[in-house]
Amino acid sequence: MLKKVFTNVRKRGPLVHNITNYVTVNDVANILLACGGSPIMADDAEEVEEITAICGGLHLNIGTLNRRTVGSMLLAGKKSNELNHPVLLDPVGAGASKFRTDTAMALMEEVKLTAIRGNISEIKTLAFGRGTTQGVDADVADAVTEGNLDEIVSFVQKFAQRTGAVIAMTGAIDVVADGERVFLIRNGHPVMASITGSGCMLSALITAYLVANPEEPGWAAAAATTVMGLAGERAQKRMADEGAGNASFRNYLIDEIFTMEEATLEAGAKCEVR
Amino acid sequence: MLKKVFTNVRKRGPLVHNITNYVTVNDVANILLACGGSPIMADDAEEVEEITAICGGLHLNIGTLNRRTVGSMLLAGKKSNELNHPVLLDPVGAGASKFRTDTAMALMEEVKLTAIRGNISEIKTLAFGRGTTQGVDADVADAVTEGNLDEIVSFVQKFAQRTGAVIAMTGAIDVVADGERVFLIRNGHPVMASITGSGCMLSALITAYLVANPEEPGWAAAAATTVMGLAGERAQKRMADEGAGNASFRNYLIDEIFTMEEATLEAGAKCEVR
Amino acid sequence: MLKKVFTNVRKRGPLVHNITNYVTVNDVANILLACGGSPIMADDAEEVEEITAICGGLHLNIGTLNRRTVGSMLLAGKKSNELNHPVLLDPVGAGASKFRTDTAMALMEEVKLTAIRGNISEIKTLAFGRGTTQGVDADVADAVTEGNLDEIVSFVQKFAQRTGAVIAMTGAIDVVADGERVFLIRNGHPVMASITGSGCMLSALITAYLVANPEEPGWAAAAATTVMGLAGERAQKRMADEGAGNASFRNYLIDEIFTMEEATLEAGAKCEVR
Repeated sequence: MLKKVFTNVRKRGPLVHNITNYVTVNDVANILLACGGSPIMADDAEEVEEITAICGGLHLNIGTLNRRTVGSMLLAGKKSNELNHPVLLDPVGAGASKFRTDTAMALMEEVKLTAIRGNISEIKTLAFGRGTTQGVDADVADAVTEGNLDEIVSFVQKFAQRTGAVIAMTGAIDVVADGERVFLIRNGHPVMASITGSGCMLSALITAYLVANPEEPGWAAAAATTVMGLAGERAQKRMADEGAGNASFRNYLIDEIFTMEEATLEAGAKCEVR
Repeated sequence: MLKKVFTNVRKRGPLVHNITNYVTVNDVANILLACGGSPIMADDAEEVEEITAICGGLHLNIGTLNRRTVGSMLLAGKKSNELNHPVLLDPVGAGASKFRTDTAMALMEEVKLTAIRGNISEIKTLAFGRGTTQGVDADVADAVTEGNLDEIVSFVQKFAQRTGAVIAMTGAIDVVADGERVFLIRNGHPVMASITGSGCMLSALITAYLVANPEEPGWAAAAATTVMGLAGERAQKRMADEGAGNASFRNYLIDEIFTMEEATLEAGAKCEVR
Repeated sequence: MLKKVFTNVRKRGPLVHNITNYVTVNDVANILLACGGSPIMADDAEEVEEITAICGGLHLNIGTLNRRTVGSMLLAGKKSNELNHPVLLDPVGAGASKFRTDTAMALMEEVKLTAIRGNISEIKTLAFGRGTTQGVDADVADAVTEGNLDEIVSFVQKFAQRTGAVIAMTGAIDVVADGERVFLIRNGHPVMASITGSGCMLSALITAYLVANPEEPGWAAAAATTVMGLAGERAQKRMADEGAGNASFRNYLIDEIFTMEEATLEAGAKCEVR
């Protein structure tokens, strides 16, 4: 299934509308091109509905949020819902400010999300909301380890069921849940945290995979996460061989998405389905 | 002439004011430095006139447009006209939304443009406007091939004559027209479409060439387009030799502009003048 | 002392809030990660105070300034002052427009700055203000050379004493003054001016060093400037060895910050204390 989902992206060339932060936007565009898709960026209320309409899916990312773009995200999200396009939310920094938390919650309430991709802290913020972190579930750990995996899996699973969205929670072990199945992905390398944009790029990649695989959103998110992790491992090897640093790693990571082949994916994937 | 125009850029170090999108802005700045020029980015209405006044030319790019920057583009454009500075418009995505089409048309009407650089779909949108695509010329093909070249050349030529601007229409074959002559450029490589910003970077490059070659705007645009295409071919070779991907290609492309020599240009240029 | 200051950054992992331009923001984020710190970017008035509160220091950069972000800079600056966090101002382009000069002056007046990093023209604009360039000090040269070094040192020193901020004035020779001592740094390479963002990246780096070395702001700024210059020399060698260009240089520069070791710094530092 991983291979089929991967190949569909190359075959179908998904066009993704991104309303995203200005820090990592160039990497987001280049990784979409690397995987076989195409990016469009447009964030003004006057045009986001038209732009979304010509794309296959929508990627919303709340890094470097401002009042003007919140309205655009809501407009684009609702339009995508009307058109039945997949919509992914990346709640960057939810929990770090009231503005980000409120915006992420508003997007969850007013837009039907196909997927949400974040780290454990962001996902917990969305799951427990404001002022409700006293509940039982709030005891969930702050990092995923083999030791607490069952507890985390159950948390992510329940959140997927409650929201109806595929949840991709990334960390040392990536946990992807679609309400039925849980995918545990053990690809990736810690150096991925040494560049800005690993998360944003993965969110864009998942959106492209969702567009190209409308029947299998869970597999789409799991495959994109696996491909990204595997690309990270391979890029890290190239960086280490050359004694290079994080800027080179960023380029190699996108390169590996560009040059990834089916056979490489098949040999390197560490994606367990539960 | 190509060589002379190329050398003038290195000699004169043109300073270019860019009001451009936040996706490819860093690449735009670095390619201007690579060619021997310097970039300034400023987009607030409070300062764009002053900033344009200290530069030699203006590059307007409507990707990631918003209401605030439209006004800044008009102000900067008019100021540049007053000062007789070259102004280039890159109508990114004209035709994809009413906002982009309207803004591009307004800039064409209210600012005297020295040059316009776009792909065939963007140029056709500007040439035929809104609601007038039923006319004869609208039958123009959607891609440039050796087969339809005469028809395309005549279309671009007429548009250059009507607007008084140099038109640089890029594609598999690049067509540059200045109202008198047409330049057909057969440099370049398809992988250039695998990164974001190839077009934006070329628009910035043409602007620098226009500033450094005020007497020869047609040759300036043709030379910049030839240099960019040749750099793309050379960068592609380096990428392929290394088994690298599109992120490395982006770096190599800018590198090739930085290291380009007169002799390389002379040996590699495929620029036909009609 | 250089070594201790350098090591503290790796050990303490400073978190820096950046309100900065959209041209070089990705490089700013990656260099902060390269040095051992972490970046957060947030520029909306609704959240900048909360974001600054969870960080260790604030980096304000007025490139691509707009009316909206000026207010955010003032809010974040005042909040940082309340919390006793270091605040650095990079007055990009001060002197080039009234808007930039006014904003830089307002930030100097309303926020207690820990450090200011700029080139000689920007620092002179801040030192002499608007309309006061007729004074004696205004005779200060426009570039730092071994010949006018004493005069420049005295100018920077006095400005540091008057403002109470560490002044890092970068050029062929970098001059850092903290009111007591002056540091002259002869690392660096002219090719650093061939990429966009050398200055912005250094400003971010200094901020990280200030956060990790609160007792020694002068040494922090001097060490960051030395590390950056040395990284530039090493990156230039790698670029030249490969016959590469400025885009590769940019990557190598950040790579060298990532891979820099104490011993390399000790062997390569050219930092004279007066």
